[in-house]
Amino acid sequence: MTSPEDLRPLLGILGGMGPMATAHFYRRLIERTPAHRDQEHLPVVIWADPTVPDRTQALLGRGPSPLSAMLTGVSWLTQGRATCVAIPCNTAHAYLDALRAHTDVPILDMVSAALEACRTFQPSLKRIGILATEGTRIARLYEAAGERLDLQIVHVPPATQTRYVDRAIADVKGGGDMARARDDIAAAVGELREAGAELAIAACTEIPLVAGGAQRIMPVLDSASALADQALAMLLPRP
Amino acid sequence: MTSPEDLRPLLGILGGMGPMATAHFYRRLIERTPAHRDQEHLPVVIWADPTVPDRTQALLGRGPSPLSAMLTGVSWLTQGRATCVAIPCNTAHAYLDALRAHTDVPILDMVSAALEACRTFQPSLKRIGILATEGTRIARLYEAAGERLDLQIVHVPPATQTRYVDRAIADVKGGGDMARARDDIAAAVGELREAGAELAIAACTEIPLVAGGAQRIMPVLDSASALADQALAMLLPRP
Repeated sequence: MTSPEDLRPLLGILGGMGPMATAHFYRRLIERTPAHRDQEHLPVVIWADPTVPDRTQALLGRGPSPLSAMLTGVSWLTQGRATCVAIPCNTAHAYLDALRAHTDVPILDMVSAALEACRTFQPSLKRIGILATEGTRIARLYEAAGERLDLQIVHVPPATQTRYVDRAIADVKGGGDMARARDDIAAAVGELREAGAELAIAACTEIPLVAGGAQRIMPVLDSASALADQALAMLLPRP
Repeated sequence: MTSPEDLRPLLGILGGMGPMATAHFYRRLIERTPAHRDQEHLPVVIWADPTVPDRTQALLGRGPSPLSAMLTGVSWLTQGRATCVAIPCNTAHAYLDALRAHTDVPILDMVSAALEACRTFQPSLKRIGILATEGTRIARLYEAAGERLDLQIVHVPPATQTRYVDRAIADVKGGGDMARARDDIAAAVGELREAGAELAIAACTEIPLVAGGAQRIMPVLDSASALADQALAMLLPRP
């Protein structure tokens, strides 16, 4: 019998937050891999526990911390010999330092990856609009990474957050009205443009699933795709 | 820290054969779950090793056996406390008995699930057309399950297998010409109808990704969806 040690590199995905965002990230990873047959793709292990407590509720002080459940997942992935971990959930990155302290295996940073991808896409970029959960906003995840990269971060007004962005995320998570979710995201992107943003990041991994129409207003970069590209750059053999 | 033992049920997916089929199955599983928020979805662990040797080549005696690599995956999933295992690759079911002999954890049977879903869809059904790999054909996986359910199995002629079905599967696996792959599958479904099939099964998990157009000729049931329904029936709490 072959052993898991034979599979190097092995990407570990700490998923389930939410499940559809994990499936979307895995699909983007496959699509962006320059492979012509199964055997050229990256070996991947996925831990997808959708029962992890809601990250935004915890950051707002309204619910239990997700950290313990996330640590279980990281332990399981690294005991399974993952050589690198990716977390396709922006809000979960509020716990990135605590997760990194728990393991020697590198854990990728989707927030920095998304901002760096924007800079590559448009080097003169100054102001970036963020479509995210309330948790990502209040944890100031994009502000912290933006400061390092000298990028200004723009959010939608609080009323728009509740009315459009939060509702669209809930619709994707709950199998709700996808047409309305698309309109909601387009409305939010319109407001980001009015606030001076030059492009937007779909900074909640549910949003790319309903951001197609909003692309007509301004470019909307997918943080999950940026994370996939970072994982591939780190783990695939150089050509 | 919570422990993996707290996650029961926990579906283990032996994936990577191919990667895109695994992502498709995971997506179908999520879509078919009657959940309104993340926490109502099934916890899932996925082992996706795309370096597993090609199943069809092995069954044709032209390549190494995939069994050892598949056993590694099953061991990893069951050591991770999976309470049930699903394999979203029809051809891999040629090794189902050997995999079941290796573990006490139940392993679902996608081939039987697909045929039973057809019977539910159309109870008077007699003849079912199969779109599959050469490996699934020569291992007579659908014939064996069809006999138990008193269903006749129809395949495309060998020339159509090579010219259309194998080429379409290779296009999906390799990121090839998807428009051509859709035409290829439609042509194969047309031939199955001429041979008397009343409906078809997309019995290779790459095929549903390009079977949309063929649905105009006759219903094409997705074996991955049938497997997802079987997993949900077994693992979700009854309402």
